[in-house]
Amino acid sequence: MTNVLFTFPVKEYLIEELQTEFPEVKFTFSSSKDQDALKSAEVIVTYGEDISVATLDQALALKWLMIASAGLEKMPLSEILKRNIFVTNVKGIHKTPMTESVMAHLLAIKRALPWMYKQQENSEWSKRSGSTELFGSTALIIGPGAIGSEIGRLLQAFGVTTIGCNRSGKNAANMNSMITFDQLSDVLPKVDIVISVLPSTPETIGLLTYDHFVLMKEDAIFMNFGRGDLIKEEQLIQAIQERQISYAVLDVFENEPLDENHPFWKMEGVIVSPHVSSHSSEYVPRALKIFRHNLHEWIEAGTNFQNVIDLEKGY
Amino acid sequence: MTNVLFTFPVKEYLIEELQTEFPEVKFTFSSSKDQDALKSAEVIVTYGEDISVATLDQALALKWLMIASAGLEKMPLSEILKRNIFVTNVKGIHKTPMTESVMAHLLAIKRALPWMYKQQENSEWSKRSGSTELFGSTALIIGPGAIGSEIGRLLQAFGVTTIGCNRSGKNAANMNSMITFDQLSDVLPKVDIVISVLPSTPETIGLLTYDHFVLMKEDAIFMNFGRGDLIKEEQLIQAIQERQISYAVLDVFENEPLDENHPFWKMEGVIVSPHVSSHSSEYVPRALKIFRHNLHEWIEAGTNFQNVIDLEKGY
Repeated sequence: MTNVLFTFPVKEYLIEELQTEFPEVKFTFSSSKDQDALKSAEVIVTYGEDISVATLDQALALKWLMIASAGLEKMPLSEILKRNIFVTNVKGIHKTPMTESVMAHLLAIKRALPWMYKQQENSEWSKRSGSTELFGSTALIIGPGAIGSEIGRLLQAFGVTTIGCNRSGKNAANMNSMITFDQLSDVLPKVDIVISVLPSTPETIGLLTYDHFVLMKEDAIFMNFGRGDLIKEEQLIQAIQERQISYAVLDVFENEPLDENHPFWKMEGVIVSPHVSSHSSEYVPRALKIFRHNLHEWIEAGTNFQNVIDLEKGY
Repeated sequence: MTNVLFTFPVKEYLIEELQTEFPEVKFTFSSSKDQDALKSAEVIVTYGEDISVATLDQALALKWLMIASAGLEKMPLSEILKRNIFVTNVKGIHKTPMTESVMAHLLAIKRALPWMYKQQENSEWSKRSGSTELFGSTALIIGPGAIGSEIGRLLQAFGVTTIGCNRSGKNAANMNSMITFDQLSDVLPKVDIVISVLPSTPETIGLLTYDHFVLMKEDAIFMNFGRGDLIKEEQLIQAIQERQISYAVLDVFENEPLDENHPFWKMEGVIVSPHVSSHSSEYVPRALKIFRHNLHEWIEAGTNFQNVIDLEKGY
């Protein structure tokens, strides 16, 4: 019998579906602090943050780590590799909710929803919304992979011109044109929206600086939906305080959770999204779909796994 | 020299553009209460609400009324017809801002932006957004004309199934299927989103009733972006209070402006949009584009006018 430990809670109807589909598997829903469960688990399904070297030391039967998230940067990858543990993740399932979050924030700003909600709180009828349109804008998407290209597709549907930006300048889907990281300063003065969905790599840490924000339009919207180390926060704060741009929508931060005294909370023109842009009621069902496929392969000793991580490459 | 009276304010750069393009025209920017301007105006450019029979009686030189809006229902059409005044409007220019407003509200609700803004006010980091997705939903669009079809196009881009609803059931663009008004009750239990963009006509007044809301899903979103007389407000209020649906996003009301004591302001699940869904910083420039085309025709005694109103038909 295969023992599978989930270190996060799962809704009852999804548990029932799992047990019906895999009668030969023993599922335990607990935490990585449950030493008994940890000891006997052949498979651990986790969001990843609870997997330390100490956890691995206790998980004596562990052969497969199923990470129900996309980022691996906080995991002890070399220790996992040393123990020859098979690793899969759920890369790809963030595409729809993250894209919808980006579009929601952009349209909300353009169509003055923050103003409107505030008016409603005060029972105040006014038509001075100052609303504008997304239509006809130009957007720069930094890091147009699967998520960035999906954002590009929907921006184009709204009549937005899309410029992709990556290291090589190599074509990405749904971009009207492409530039390299080196060309950022030439293009920033011409765009209305700057969206980063970059992961954290040695090349992307600190890629943007205060000077880039000085180059942007005064009514530009900056969105960081990648990683918080893209720009030093003190530089971003300075740029916003000086009104170099009009809006910063931030889903990621240098330190999370954001301290309750952090200036972002109260700054004019800042929208704090508490790293929830990929969250969705569909998240766990979609992650379990990948897991169920892989669990069948696992039980039947198949090889057709989805989202296998190459630990030496780190993705 | 042709005298043109604008009864609403226009930004300075647009005035300069007009004067440069039409040196032979005398433009006056005032109001319909300006008796001198009214008396000599051959052309009046107005949002329409200030045109009464008394205004017409004073506008002795008036030959062309340019209405910078789409609705004509409050205008004294038979009196205008009697005086043989030429009428044009700007039908069509609401499509982009209204569609963006509809998409903004839907995505904001699905991606939990009202919750997020509230968290930020309280400097409170939480991930319990309860966010869901637009993807995979089904939307019913009641009155799929130019605006409704544009909404359908963008909904489909987000992976939403669209059902159009009109009197005849005749095909409309960007709808996966069509139904007639008579089939509403059959379809309402199956849809996640109900959007009306219907104008006010004898057939649409009171088209929806409390009973229709009982048929809808508990988590349905209802959006009225057409006219406030689509449903009696007391019936809509009852349906919302009973949580027959989860959200009502209302851009139009029985009486506007909404009284500050109206229950809608404070009701859970109601978003009050103060009839601004078609507003946009691009509105006047876009209206003037139509006007400038028509003014050239007018001066040169041409016939190729845009958006001419047939007063006998009323549209």
